[in-house]
Amino acid sequence: MSKLVVALLDGTLVDPGQPLIHADDFGVLRGDGIFETTLVVDGYARDLTEHLARLEVSATMLDLAVPGAADWHRGIDTVLANWTGGRDMVLRLVATRGRENAGQPTCFAIGGPVNPQIYADRSIGVRVLTLPRGFAGAAAATMPWLLAGAKTLSYAINMAAGRYAHAHDADDVIFVGSDGLVLEGPTATVVIARGHTLITPPTDGILAGVTVRRLYRDAAIQGWLTETAPLKPTDLHEADGLWLVSGVRLLAPVVSIDGVPRSIGQATEELAGILAIPQGLAQKD
Amino acid sequence: MSKLVVALLDGTLVDPGQPLIHADDFGVLRGDGIFETTLVVDGYARDLTEHLARLEVSATMLDLAVPGAADWHRGIDTVLANWTGGRDMVLRLVATRGRENAGQPTCFAIGGPVNPQIYADRSIGVRVLTLPRGFAGAAAATMPWLLAGAKTLSYAINMAAGRYAHAHDADDVIFVGSDGLVLEGPTATVVIARGHTLITPPTDGILAGVTVRRLYRDAAIQGWLTETAPLKPTDLHEADGLWLVSGVRLLAPVVSIDGVPRSIGQATEELAGILAIPQGLAQKD
Repeated sequence: MSKLVVALLDGTLVDPGQPLIHADDFGVLRGDGIFETTLVVDGYARDLTEHLARLEVSATMLDLAVPGAADWHRGIDTVLANWTGGRDMVLRLVATRGRENAGQPTCFAIGGPVNPQIYADRSIGVRVLTLPRGFAGAAAATMPWLLAGAKTLSYAINMAAGRYAHAHDADDVIFVGSDGLVLEGPTATVVIARGHTLITPPTDGILAGVTVRRLYRDAAIQGWLTETAPLKPTDLHEADGLWLVSGVRLLAPVVSIDGVPRSIGQATEELAGILAIPQGLAQKD
Repeated sequence: MSKLVVALLDGTLVDPGQPLIHADDFGVLRGDGIFETTLVVDGYARDLTEHLARLEVSATMLDLAVPGAADWHRGIDTVLANWTGGRDMVLRLVATRGRENAGQPTCFAIGGPVNPQIYADRSIGVRVLTLPRGFAGAAAATMPWLLAGAKTLSYAINMAAGRYAHAHDADDVIFVGSDGLVLEGPTATVVIARGHTLITPPTDGILAGVTVRRLYRDAAIQGWLTETAPLKPTDLHEADGLWLVSGVRLLAPVVSIDGVPRSIGQATEELAGILAIPQGLAQKD
């Protein structure tokens, strides 16, 4: 009954019911590896070039030699060709440091169904908690060993923050740095609207969002101004719109912060429409 | 040629040459899981009760339901019974959150050879860098979503810190909190000697070391005073002895800090001898 489709980078299709990773793979033993996730709609993997470019950035930060885009495309093509699960698919690209002493990464592409909650989050919004992340983004960005800004397989904190939210009558989290500045969600970029300007925090110590970059590009075509600027939690409360932006959920409006309800934001429908354009840039000309 | 021995918790022996983990296991995709590592000498797994107890603590912090000690012992017994790799073995116990939607953890025990570097570290010591960890231990300890003190599979930062050290003419790292207090090594507890007193930092925001607890217990029998107290980097420089203490390497004397050489410490031989006692407590009576 599994709808998963798994492929190696030589294009081999792997039975998802069979194990793929060895017990001594550093991806398992140490969360030592990197990944990317994006949404596939009607066979089109959104922003794939950008995701592959960010995977390469993460690989450099982890000193991990990963295959090039052509290899990833072979695996991705196999996943896409064998997907029978419907219009939408979540595509994950994974590269671990590989087996102990093997000296080569373990790489695969995996397609699976979209969690139904994603659609609910887009439509009815999410209640967020602001939680301290422990560090300041600008400081973390100067410490390469902290891997801030790399998309690593070590996501236990991100997952724990999500569980903490669910245990406290919320759906998601916005991390705040020890300097009082807004960072990011566990799996999303924070974007606010102030009038007709979109603002997102600088990428110091956080992941550079692929989807927010696309949103900025395509919203600018529709007349939005776009800015990167430090944000404080009060800015979130006072914003005309507040969203969590990410590659699969796309745009999730925030409808409460730390238990304080807020408007879903007038611009939600327009921005969701902009992000829904399959290839981006569709309305440029 | 693999010397690995892998077993499931029902006692089943697994071929280490065959994959064990599915591509959608959260242990791989998110580093979402926990582990323990200890040294086995002549078939005896050191401090196993304490490691299983800490695994349970980590499981609680991650809200992960893991099997009890009896199950782990079944897997461990199979690993021990099938080990042919010599006197010393590294034993790892791993529990991941399991496959997406499976709702049960993936658990296994894995035995493998000790990295030869371990023996060199014990004998000739390690050169450490002090590196900022980004957060303050006491603050992190109040934020359960940061999982500080849990031994999770999300060890990418720990591994990156080690690589950073190696790239900068050092062997290991001592993390320092943003409050200026010494935390821990990426895979070890920090212990200093001041006269005939051993001092280790409080476990706020760091892992509670199993091996340092044994060291304290057995060193006390030999007349050492033992203390838990905040340490600053200057305390490391001024200490009469400085060691990284952990379950496999046991006691690694620090022979330089940030490029400044220091004595291996008169007490290294005595403390190493105390830690080498297989069962601990051997000289109590």
